[in-house]
Amino acid sequence: MFNFPEYLFLQVGLNLTQICLPRECTEDEIIEEVLKLNQDPRVHGVYLHLPPVFLTDAPLDGKTVVVVGGEGPLGIALQCLLQRGGMFVHNCHRNSEGLEKQVLDASSSGVGALTAVLRMQNVVQSSSRWAQQQQYRPWILRSLKLQPLSPVPRDIEISRAQTPKAIDQLAQEIGLLQEETEAYGRTKAKVRLSLLDRLREQPDGKYVLVAGITPTPLGEGKSTVTIGLVQALTAHLKLNSFACLRQPSQGPTFGVKGGAAGGGYAQVIPMEEFNLHLTGDIHAISAANNLVAAAIDARMLHEATQTDKALYSRLVPSVNGVRCFSPIQVARLRRLGINETDPSALTPQEVSSFVRLDLDPAKVTWQRVVDTNDRFLRKITVGQANTEKGHMRETQFDIAVASEIMAILALTDGLGDMKTRLGRMVVGSSRSGQPVTAEDLGVSGALAVLMKDAIKPTLMQTLEGTPVFVHAGPFANIAHGNSSVLADKLALKLVGEDGFVVTEAGFGADIGMEKFFNIKCRSSGLRPNVVVLVATVRALKMHGGGPNVSAGSPLPKEYINENLSLVAGGCSTNLKKQIEIAHLFGVPVVVALNVFKTDTQAEIDLVCRIAKESGASDAVPCHHWALGGRGSLDLAQAVKRASNQPNHFQFLYNQETPIVEKIRMIAQKVYGADDIKLSVEAQAKIDYYNQQGYGNLPICMAKTHLSLSHMPELKGVPTGFTLPIRDVRASVGAGFIYPLVGTMSTMPGLPTRPCFYDIDLDPVTEEISGLF
Amino acid sequence: MFNFPEYLFLQVGLNLTQICLPRECTEDEIIEEVLKLNQDPRVHGVYLHLPPVFLTDAPLDGKTVVVVGGEGPLGIALQCLLQRGGMFVHNCHRNSEGLEKQVLDASSSGVGALTAVLRMQNVVQSSSRWAQQQQYRPWILRSLKLQPLSPVPRDIEISRAQTPKAIDQLAQEIGLLQEETEAYGRTKAKVRLSLLDRLREQPDGKYVLVAGITPTPLGEGKSTVTIGLVQALTAHLKLNSFACLRQPSQGPTFGVKGGAAGGGYAQVIPMEEFNLHLTGDIHAISAANNLVAAAIDARMLHEATQTDKALYSRLVPSVNGVRCFSPIQVARLRRLGINETDPSALTPQEVSSFVRLDLDPAKVTWQRVVDTNDRFLRKITVGQANTEKGHMRETQFDIAVASEIMAILALTDGLGDMKTRLGRMVVGSSRSGQPVTAEDLGVSGALAVLMKDAIKPTLMQTLEGTPVFVHAGPFANIAHGNSSVLADKLALKLVGEDGFVVTEAGFGADIGMEKFFNIKCRSSGLRPNVVVLVATVRALKMHGGGPNVSAGSPLPKEYINENLSLVAGGCSTNLKKQIEIAHLFGVPVVVALNVFKTDTQAEIDLVCRIAKESGASDAVPCHHWALGGRGSLDLAQAVKRASNQPNHFQFLYNQETPIVEKIRMIAQKVYGADDIKLSVEAQAKIDYYNQQGYGNLPICMAKTHLSLSHMPELKGVPTGFTLPIRDVRASVGAGFIYPLVGTMSTMPGLPTRPCFYDIDLDPVTEEISGLF
Repeated sequence: MFNFPEYLFLQVGLNLTQICLPRECTEDEIIEEVLKLNQDPRVHGVYLHLPPVFLTDAPLDGKTVVVVGGEGPLGIALQCLLQRGGMFVHNCHRNSEGLEKQVLDASSSGVGALTAVLRMQNVVQSSSRWAQQQQYRPWILRSLKLQPLSPVPRDIEISRAQTPKAIDQLAQEIGLLQEETEAYGRTKAKVRLSLLDRLREQPDGKYVLVAGITPTPLGEGKSTVTIGLVQALTAHLKLNSFACLRQPSQGPTFGVKGGAAGGGYAQVIPMEEFNLHLTGDIHAISAANNLVAAAIDARMLHEATQTDKALYSRLVPSVNGVRCFSPIQVARLRRLGINETDPSALTPQEVSSFVRLDLDPAKVTWQRVVDTNDRFLRKITVGQANTEKGHMRETQFDIAVASEIMAILALTDGLGDMKTRLGRMVVGSSRSGQPVTAEDLGVSGALAVLMKDAIKPTLMQTLEGTPVFVHAGPFANIAHGNSSVLADKLALKLVGEDGFVVTEAGFGADIGMEKFFNIKCRSSGLRPNVVVLVATVRALKMHGGGPNVSAGSPLPKEYINENLSLVAGGCSTNLKKQIEIAHLFGVPVVVALNVFKTDTQAEIDLVCRIAKESGASDAVPCHHWALGGRGSLDLAQAVKRASNQPNHFQFLYNQETPIVEKIRMIAQKVYGADDIKLSVEAQAKIDYYNQQGYGNLPICMAKTHLSLSHMPELKGVPTGFTLPIRDVRASVGAGFIYPLVGTMSTMPGLPTRPCFYDIDLDPVTEEISGLF
Repeated sequence: MFNFPEYLFLQVGLNLTQICLPRECTEDEIIEEVLKLNQDPRVHGVYLHLPPVFLTDAPLDGKTVVVVGGEGPLGIALQCLLQRGGMFVHNCHRNSEGLEKQVLDASSSGVGALTAVLRMQNVVQSSSRWAQQQQYRPWILRSLKLQPLSPVPRDIEISRAQTPKAIDQLAQEIGLLQEETEAYGRTKAKVRLSLLDRLREQPDGKYVLVAGITPTPLGEGKSTVTIGLVQALTAHLKLNSFACLRQPSQGPTFGVKGGAAGGGYAQVIPMEEFNLHLTGDIHAISAANNLVAAAIDARMLHEATQTDKALYSRLVPSVNGVRCFSPIQVARLRRLGINETDPSALTPQEVSSFVRLDLDPAKVTWQRVVDTNDRFLRKITVGQANTEKGHMRETQFDIAVASEIMAILALTDGLGDMKTRLGRMVVGSSRSGQPVTAEDLGVSGALAVLMKDAIKPTLMQTLEGTPVFVHAGPFANIAHGNSSVLADKLALKLVGEDGFVVTEAGFGADIGMEKFFNIKCRSSGLRPNVVVLVATVRALKMHGGGPNVSAGSPLPKEYINENLSLVAGGCSTNLKKQIEIAHLFGVPVVVALNVFKTDTQAEIDLVCRIAKESGASDAVPCHHWALGGRGSLDLAQAVKRASNQPNHFQFLYNQETPIVEKIRMIAQKVYGADDIKLSVEAQAKIDYYNQQGYGNLPICMAKTHLSLSHMPELKGVPTGFTLPIRDVRASVGAGFIYPLVGTMSTMPGLPTRPCFYDIDLDPVTEEISGLF
C-alpha cells in the first residue's frame, strides 16, 4: 500500500495540471494511473509536489516521488520510480506491459535507500531533456516530387494524382511537437497556440505579403503565386517557408467561382478538403453569429411582453432558494455603474436598467449569416409566426465570411483577446442611443466556447509537400480580407530566422494591401519585409485600354494576341501606381508576372522592364501554374534578395487622427481621389462613433476592387474624382470603422447554372469530380 | 537505372489502387517512391503486376518486383526488394532513414539471382500476414477507473475530472485498423465504412433498444441508462458493448435543455466535445440543406425572368465550342423520356420541359435550416431585395436536425444509397402537380460531396472508457428520432457475436420504439433482441394521477415524498401499456427504473413487482447516475439473460398496406385510439402520394410524446379518443410518410434566460464552465 499525497501535478505542455488520486491507494491503482499517463501524449513528465521534508534525509513517512521523462509518439517512458523506505529505481521503456511487470518486480524487491541527491539528479536530467525538446528544431522536410503533365490537367485531377504526406509527418518535419497538433483526418491538423509560448524566444522569419494590381473580374492568381512561391522556396531552394491562406467560403465553391486552393501545379492538397468544411471554422462562426441573432430577437420579444419584475425573476431566478447574478450579469451591472451583488438589494430603477437592453428594432445592426450563395435572403422579414405576437421586422442574411466574428478571428492574438472582442461587439443601439453589446445579451461566454477550436490555424500542404496554414477569411468587401494574425505568427516562429512566411491580401493592393498594413500589421505588431505584387498581361492590357473583360464571355482578341502598346499602357498606369502605394509604406516590391500561355516573350520582357523602371526591386515571370515550384524559382530568388534590402515600414496614418482625416488620407494618397464627400448619414455616424469613443479605430474601406476609384469601369489610374462616402459602420469587436463607398453586396447569388451541376461523388471510389 | 512497368499497384485497405511511375526512373526516384509509401498508413503492401515471364527462370528484361509488408502505425517496413539480374533482397525496419541507406547499399552490391519460388514465398507470407490482420480481433479494453463522489458534482466537472483515453488507443483496443479511423482531435474519430466490408463474415452481436415510458417534460433519463448499461457490461462484466447515441442539436445546448451526453457518472466524455460541433455532421447537413434551398429560389427567379432559349443556353453552355449535357442533366432528360444526347437536337418543346422545373412557389415544401433556437425564423418572407424583382414568398427555417437530410443520414446504409436518397428528395411540386426533386435541381452530386464525411460515425468513449458511436439525430417530432443505421451496423460487427449494441430511441416507446421497429429496422434489416424500457418513479406518479410537472417550476410534494398508490397507478397504466406495445413486436422487455435520490425502497420494489407482473422479463433499479456502471450491474445482467430468450420479432404492418390503414393500425394498436379522423387536406395528400407511387412507404407519426394520445394532458392510458390527422407529408428521400397529429413545432425558441448565461471559457486553462 502506497500513500499518495492528494494531488499529482502533471506537466502538460508548458503548464502544470492537477489530477486527483485518493489519499491511499494500492499498487494496482498506481500502476493503472502510470499506464494511463503513459498513454496520454500531452504528458511529458510527472512529479509530486512534496513538502520541504523531502530534501532532508529523514524518512518521508511514505511520501512518493515519481519522475517520468517524455518520449514522444509512443507515450512516455517511466524513468524512475522512487520511494523512501521500500524504495525502488528502475528504467523502463516504451512497452506498457513490460513496464507493468518491472514496476511490480521492483516494488517487491526494493533496492534500498537512495539519497536526495540522486533523486534530484533524476529530476534534473528528465527536466533538461524535456527543456531541450522545447527548443526550436530545424526542419527536415521531405518534399513531394512533381511531374507536371502538358497540357495541364484539371485542378482536381492534379490534386488527386499526388499522395499527400500524413499530416502528423509534416508536422514533425517542421518541428511541431506531437501535443501541439490535433489531426482532423489524415491531411489536416489544427495547431495549438501553446506553440507561441514554447517558441517565444525564437526570432521571427521574413514576412512576405502577396498583393495584386487592380484585377479583371476573372482574378489574376494571387493564390497560385503564393503557393508557387513557397513551393519554390522550400522544395527547390531548401529554404523554410510557409504559405498562410484564407479559408474560402463554400458559397462560391458551389456558385460561380469554384474553389480557392490555388490551381494547376500550385495548389493546396487535397483541394476538396481545403474547399469543403475544412476543420469547421466557418461553421463555428455561423453558429456563433446566429446565436447572437437569435438572442437579439428573443430578447426584444421578451422585453416587449414582460414587466420589469417578471424579466428580473427570470433573468436572476431563485435556484434551490438562492438567487445570484452570473459573472456575465455582474459585468453588465458594473457597466451600468451598479456595484451591488445581492439581487434583492437593487432599486426598481436599477432593476429596470439591468433587465432592459431596450434595443431599438430599427437600429439592430447584427445580421444572420449562412455560408451559401442565397440571394433570396438579402432582405427578409422575420417574426411573422403567431408565436412572435406581431414583432416582425426587416433584416437580412449575409454570407458567413462577412460576419464580424470572422473579422475578429482574423485579427485576434489569443483566446483571452478573442473573448474580449466577442463581448464588445456592438449589435445595435438602445432607444436612448447607447450601444448594446454581445456581453449585454449574456452570450459572450457561449461565443468563446463555440469558437474555442476555430482559433487554432489548420495545417495543410502544397502539391510539393511544403506547409500551409489555412485560417480565417474575412470578406474583403466589408472587412479587411486578410488571413489570420495567429497563423502568420505561428508560421513566423516555425520557419525560423532565415525562413519566409508568405501571406496573401485579398483584392488589389489599393484595398487588400492597404488594410494589411494599416489594420492587420497595426493589430499584430508584425512588420512586412517584402511585397510581391502580382500582375498579368491580361489585366495590364485592360488597364492599357483593352476592351471589357467579363466572366462567362469569350476573351476579346486583344487578350489572346500580342499587343505591346496595351501592355505598356497598363504598366505605366495601374502597375506603377500600385508599386508606389507599397512604397508609401516603405516596403520593397517584387513584381510577379503570372504568365499565361498566350503571353509572348516580348510582352513578358516589357512588363519586367517597366516594372523595374517604376521602382520595383525586381520583376520576374512565374510559371508555377504549369510547372509548380520549379516555375517560380526566379521569383523565390528575387524575394530572397529583396528581403535583405533596407526596410522603412511606416503606417499611412496615425490611429489618433480623426476619422474623416483618416478616410481622406486613404482616398487621396492610395486611391488618387481629389477629395471625399460624406453623405449626411455618414457624417452623422462619424459623429456618433466619435461620441462613443470609437474615433481612434483604424479605417477599413468598403470599395470596389475593380478600379482604384469607386467606379469599377475606370481602369488604369483614374484621377479627378471625388470619393463618395455613402455610409459609415463600425465593427467594434474586430476593431475598425468601415466607410461604405457605393453599395457593397454581402450576399452573392447563384447563377442559372451553378458550379454544382458538375460536382459529383463516385460512391465506390469516393472520388470527387467537378470541383475546380 | 531501374526499369519500372507503368503501374505500381498499391494495396489500400481491401482494394487495389494504382499509382503512376514513369517507365524509366532513377534509383533516387524509386527510393523517393518507397519512402512515400512507407509514410502512407493506408498502404499495406506493394506489388508489381508482372507478365507471366515472371515465373520462368529466364531474365526478366529489367522488370522489378517490390514486396512490402504492412507494419501498422509507424508505416510499412520494406520486406524485400528483388530484381532479376543485379537483384537484391533486404529486410528493413521502421526507420525510414535506415531504409534509405539499406536500399542504396543493397542496390549497389546485388546479392545474386533468386528463384521465383523464393519470390512467391515472400508474396504469400506478406499476404497472409495482411489477411490475418483483416480478421475480427477480440477486444483488449482497458477501462477507466471511476471514483464517484457524493454528492454528485456537476456534469462538466465529472467529465473534466476524467482523462479520456487517446481515441486511437480506444480504436485499437476494439479491433479497428489504423486505416479505418480518422482522428478529429484527440478524443473523437470518424470510423470508415470499409469496416463493414472487412468484417462482412463476422456474426452480429446482440441488439438492444433503450426506450421509455411516456415521459414528464423533464425527461426520464434514457441516455444515462444507455450509457450506464454499456459501462456496466464492458467495464464491469467484461462483455463487449457499444452505445449508439444521437448527436444533439446545438440549439438546446444553448437554449433550455443543455447537453445530451448523459449525466452524472454515466456520460460520454469529453461532454463539451459531444455537445459542440462534434465532427461537424450537423453543420454539413445545414450546408447541404441550405444549398438546396438557395437553388430552389434562384431557379424560380431565373425561370421567371428568362426565355426557354436563354435558360437553355445558360444551362447547357458552349465551352470551347462544345456543348454537352452534364451527367446530372442526362438523368433529368431520361426522367422526362428524352433519350437525345446532342443538345442541338432537342425540339423546342423538349427544351422547354427540360429547362423549366416550373416549381409552384406556393407548393415548395423545402425549408431552410439553422442549428440555433431562433423562433423569429418560424415564419419569414424572403426575396424582398430589389435584386429579386418582387419574387418574394413566405417560408420558414427549421432547426437543422429537422432536415430531411438528417433523416436520410440516419437511415442510409452507404454512400451509394445516400446519394440516391439525396437525389430523390422532393422539394415541392410543379404547377402541373409533378414532384420536383433535388436531382431535377442539379444539386444531388454536390449534396453527396458535402455529406461524404458526415456519413462516417464518430467514435467517442464513456466515463469508464468504453466505446460509443455518436451519429445522426433526426428530430423526433417530424422524423424517426433514432440514431443511425450505420453506427448500429458497425458496432454490431465490432462487439462480436457475444457482445451488445445498445441503441436509443427518442421520446416514449409509443413513438420512438414504434418507429425504431417499423422504420429503422425495416430499412436496416437488423432485428432487436431486447427492449430496455426506462421508467422513473416521478413519471409513474404523474401517470398515476399526480399533479402537473413542468420545467422551471418546483416539483409538487407528491414527487418528493413516498406515495405508493400514485406509483401503482402509473405502473398499471402507462408502464403496462408500453410493455404491451413492445410485445406487439415480439421482443422481450427489461424495465430499467432510473432511481432518483427521493425514491423510497418500497416505491422501487413496487415498480419492479408490477413491471414483472405486467409481462416484463425483468425489472431492476439503476443507480448509474450516482455510481456509474457499477450502479447498472443488475440491469446488465438482466439484459444479458433477456437476450438469450426466444425472440419472435414482427412488424406491426406490412409495407404494402394502404396509407390510411397503416395510420389506423398505429393509432389503434399502439396509441389505443378508437379510430382516426382525416382532415380534407390529409385525405387529399394521401390520394396524391398514392398517385405518385409513395403509398408503400412506412409511416412516421408526428405526435406529442407527452401522452399516448394526441392530447399532452392525458396521462396514464387514455382511451375512447379519435386521433385527428391534420395533414400528411412525405420525406421521399428518407423514405417515409409523416402524418401530422396536431401542430408540431420544428423550431424551438430561447427562454428569457437561456443556458448561455452560465456558459464561459477560461482563456488560460481553456476550461469550459456552465455546460450541463
